[in-house]
Amino acid sequence: MLEKLKQTVWKENLRLKELGLVLFTWGNVSAIDRETGLVVIKPSGIPYETMQPEDMVVTDLKGNVVEGTLRPSSDLPTHLALYAADPDIGGIVHTHSPWAVAFAQAGRDLPPLGTTHADYFHGPVPCTRDMAAEEIQSAYERHTGEVIVDTFASRGICMEHTPAVLVKNHGPFTWGKDAVQAVYHAAVLEEAAKMAAITYQLNAKTPPAPEVLLEKHFQRKHGPHAYYGQTAGNPQSAGVSGK
Amino acid sequence: MLEKLKQTVWKENLRLKELGLVLFTWGNVSAIDRETGLVVIKPSGIPYETMQPEDMVVTDLKGNVVEGTLRPSSDLPTHLALYAADPDIGGIVHTHSPWAVAFAQAGRDLPPLGTTHADYFHGPVPCTRDMAAEEIQSAYERHTGEVIVDTFASRGICMEHTPAVLVKNHGPFTWGKDAVQAVYHAAVLEEAAKMAAITYQLNAKTPPAPEVLLEKHFQRKHGPHAYYGQTAGNPQSAGVSGK
Amino acid sequence: MLEKLKQTVWKENLRLKELGLVLFTWGNVSAIDRETGLVVIKPSGIPYETMQPEDMVVTDLKGNVVEGTLRPSSDLPTHLALYAADPDIGGIVHTHSPWAVAFAQAGRDLPPLGTTHADYFHGPVPCTRDMAAEEIQSAYERHTGEVIVDTFASRGICMEHTPAVLVKNHGPFTWGKDAVQAVYHAAVLEEAAKMAAITYQLNAKTPPAPEVLLEKHFQRKHGPHAYYGQTAGNPQSAGVSGK
Amino acid sequence: MLEKLKQTVWKENLRLKELGLVLFTWGNVSAIDRETGLVVIKPSGIPYETMQPEDMVVTDLKGNVVEGTLRPSSDLPTHLALYAADPDIGGIVHTHSPWAVAFAQAGRDLPPLGTTHADYFHGPVPCTRDMAAEEIQSAYERHTGEVIVDTFASRGICMEHTPAVLVKNHGPFTWGKDAVQAVYHAAVLEEAAKMAAITYQLNAKTPPAPEVLLEKHFQRKHGPHAYYGQTAGNPQSAGVSGK
Repeated sequence: MLEKLKQTVWKENLRLKELGLVLFTWGNVSAIDRETGLVVIKPSGIPYETMQPEDMVVTDLKGNVVEGTLRPSSDLPTHLALYAADPDIGGIVHTHSPWAVAFAQAGRDLPPLGTTHADYFHGPVPCTRDMAAEEIQSAYERHTGEVIVDTFASRGICMEHTPAVLVKNHGPFTWGKDAVQAVYHAAVLEEAAKMAAITYQLNAKTPPAPEVLLEKHFQRKHGPHAYYGQTAGNPQSAGVSGK
Repeated sequence: MLEKLKQTVWKENLRLKELGLVLFTWGNVSAIDRETGLVVIKPSGIPYETMQPEDMVVTDLKGNVVEGTLRPSSDLPTHLALYAADPDIGGIVHTHSPWAVAFAQAGRDLPPLGTTHADYFHGPVPCTRDMAAEEIQSAYERHTGEVIVDTFASRGICMEHTPAVLVKNHGPFTWGKDAVQAVYHAAVLEEAAKMAAITYQLNAKTPPAPEVLLEKHFQRKHGPHAYYGQTAGNPQSAGVSGK
Repeated sequence: MLEKLKQTVWKENLRLKELGLVLFTWGNVSAIDRETGLVVIKPSGIPYETMQPEDMVVTDLKGNVVEGTLRPSSDLPTHLALYAADPDIGGIVHTHSPWAVAFAQAGRDLPPLGTTHADYFHGPVPCTRDMAAEEIQSAYERHTGEVIVDTFASRGICMEHTPAVLVKNHGPFTWGKDAVQAVYHAAVLEEAAKMAAITYQLNAKTPPAPEVLLEKHFQRKHGPHAYYGQTAGNPQSAGVSGK
Repeated sequence: MLEKLKQTVWKENLRLKELGLVLFTWGNVSAIDRETGLVVIKPSGIPYETMQPEDMVVTDLKGNVVEGTLRPSSDLPTHLALYAADPDIGGIVHTHSPWAVAFAQAGRDLPPLGTTHADYFHGPVPCTRDMAAEEIQSAYERHTGEVIVDTFASRGICMEHTPAVLVKNHGPFTWGKDAVQAVYHAAVLEEAAKMAAITYQLNAKTPPAPEVLLEKHFQRKHGPHAYYGQTAGNPQSAGVSGK
């Protein structure tokens, strides 16, 4: 069942490690098959070294395990809330990558200080609000997802154009059209966060880059007039988003 | 004698290097066999590259060498003081990992700024007080252990729930139910310290994360209602503490 | 056509990755054959892992593709403007290496704080001015090149002696007598930027190194009285610029 | 001639790279044979990848090449001044390792903030004064050595007990009883500098560690009552200086 997707999700979980984004098992990748509405996610607490494609867990959008003998990642309900909120999301990643976590712990948005950021994120990557005690004490992971969705809605940020969030005092979630792109965005976010932190060290009051520059960079990779990569006008894509 | 434990202690010493936690021979791992009360520890000053399982030194809880031709790590008395203080400790690690050392040199607790910290440590990782001249000049390593134990006792911190300490102007010690878990905590501590230092660079007055969030994360991995990993309600464990 | 140069440009693009200067495909290397006036550049958005020498694109100095089935890097017009401005430039590199990007995002020159800098750059590595909206909205990449050239001209900086620039809110470009040397300078710039950022962390008001020291170091590697490497008086060269 | 020493010097030059202390060819290691008074040093500007033991250059204490077809490192006169000043020095290293360079660029001593430092350096690692224009303009490298020696003499610092210096606006030199130990100290210095920089980021006014603690750590590794490693009372040694 969904063997190819399980293979992809397994491989992308391993890629988190190769990209230096996770220590031990501190990350998870999922993907959704939109035709069947089934989600494939990493099992909880299985070391990357021994994890196999067949260990991936298949669930429905309510979180019921449809296939697999292992328990799914405890962050599954967060993933499900995001899949439910935006039908264009095909893959989701959660990590504790340290530079992104630092912004989350400081409770700060990651602002668009330069073109590296603007090539992938349209405006600041938002940091969520504090969760209420009730939101934390029951259905915590689902509420985390809802707070993310609410953050984008209330601030008028497009989840497709800014495929990343910083969950306050916790860490980043990223997404994309598939698991490959979601992992790509997790790496971009960490690099942009590192660049921003060093920039602030040089000048704590560095303003965002000029709007016209940010817009130019975002548009040359995305939307109808994109001219990056080998196909004109294609949406952002991990495979062909290079320079 | 204790061949399996020597194999483990040897392997975990090497793992300190693989995890990037030690330069040269700047770390040591020990484990205790609670049935016999015997401790297995790394020998002093032997390069990791040539060290073999049979080089591990076996001592009793008073530090008498029971087996082995090499001298034990000079930090042995610190390990022994911790084993004596808490019967649940099965393994201990000392490193000079740089981000944790920086907090120790600054004389600061490592506060719980986010969930990465709270997943493994229940409240701040304490920094010990300055040692008195007499404590330093004789039986220094034993006194170091006693100051650690005293720090937890006087501040009401549970050594099982916060399995790490920063020895002022020196560096971290971590522990766990066995050597594998103690090494795991050494890596967690270093990563949490790195995240905290970067967070403070972004905002030097960042407060700890909300108590309710910290508690949630600690409890979902530990205690009777834990739901992390593949077995419900299991205590924190390096093997299954993932996400 | 230009098979040897394509081989070099391909290899130097890969070397950006080996040197840790690029994430994914975030960099590009080109070289020019001054006899024919033809430029060889990396194609746009092709992953380094699968890229082959025959994928390199050959263009004339106006950007017309002369050979190759793939689209050239979107930064090509920037490269062309630099080749046009200085006939001694034989190779050009663009990266988003994080420490250099931080200076570009902070909008600051990289000042000559020490001999590491002075061994390769004669004075500060300049940061360009903000580009005007018109410059960004059309022919952006060409205008980027023109702003670089204008920065050196208006500030009286010699492009041969200071083979690097920080494009504001974007990132570094470096160059040299060939692609090998341009890549070498990209690595030097990143290391010098890292050193400078840490230096400023220790003392935010650190002045440049004394002029006489900077001049000494630049001259012992460059110009008629150079005594570095194995050949006297040779100009700076990646192959023999060591110590 | 001195084949074994050439082998060692060659190997230790490569080890600078393995330890992450040098980019490209930015470092050099030498050793002296005290019986003959001959010095073996890395040639200038030869890439580490192709450098062979027979490329090492043999000179006398005045810098005359006694054997070898390549030019010696341009820093040779600095090495010679140190060998002349202290007959116990058997090996010398120069690098541009970034954290140590940052202290040199900031013009600051590296203070003893903790035991990692005190295990190898007795008190602060001094930063030299600005060199006079005349000292820079002629016989620069010899004067660099003389300024180092003068720094230790005028400040009453023992070169054997503090085997490292920061040359202002330039970078570190370290030494030891042989080339192996000098390289060891180069790595220790870089790690101690990194720890100190992060410590200052947490608290810019962090005082040195208490004198009694520093003294304890230095003495337990050095001098007649040392109890580190496998041999009692041995002087500090890279081979057995572990924990």
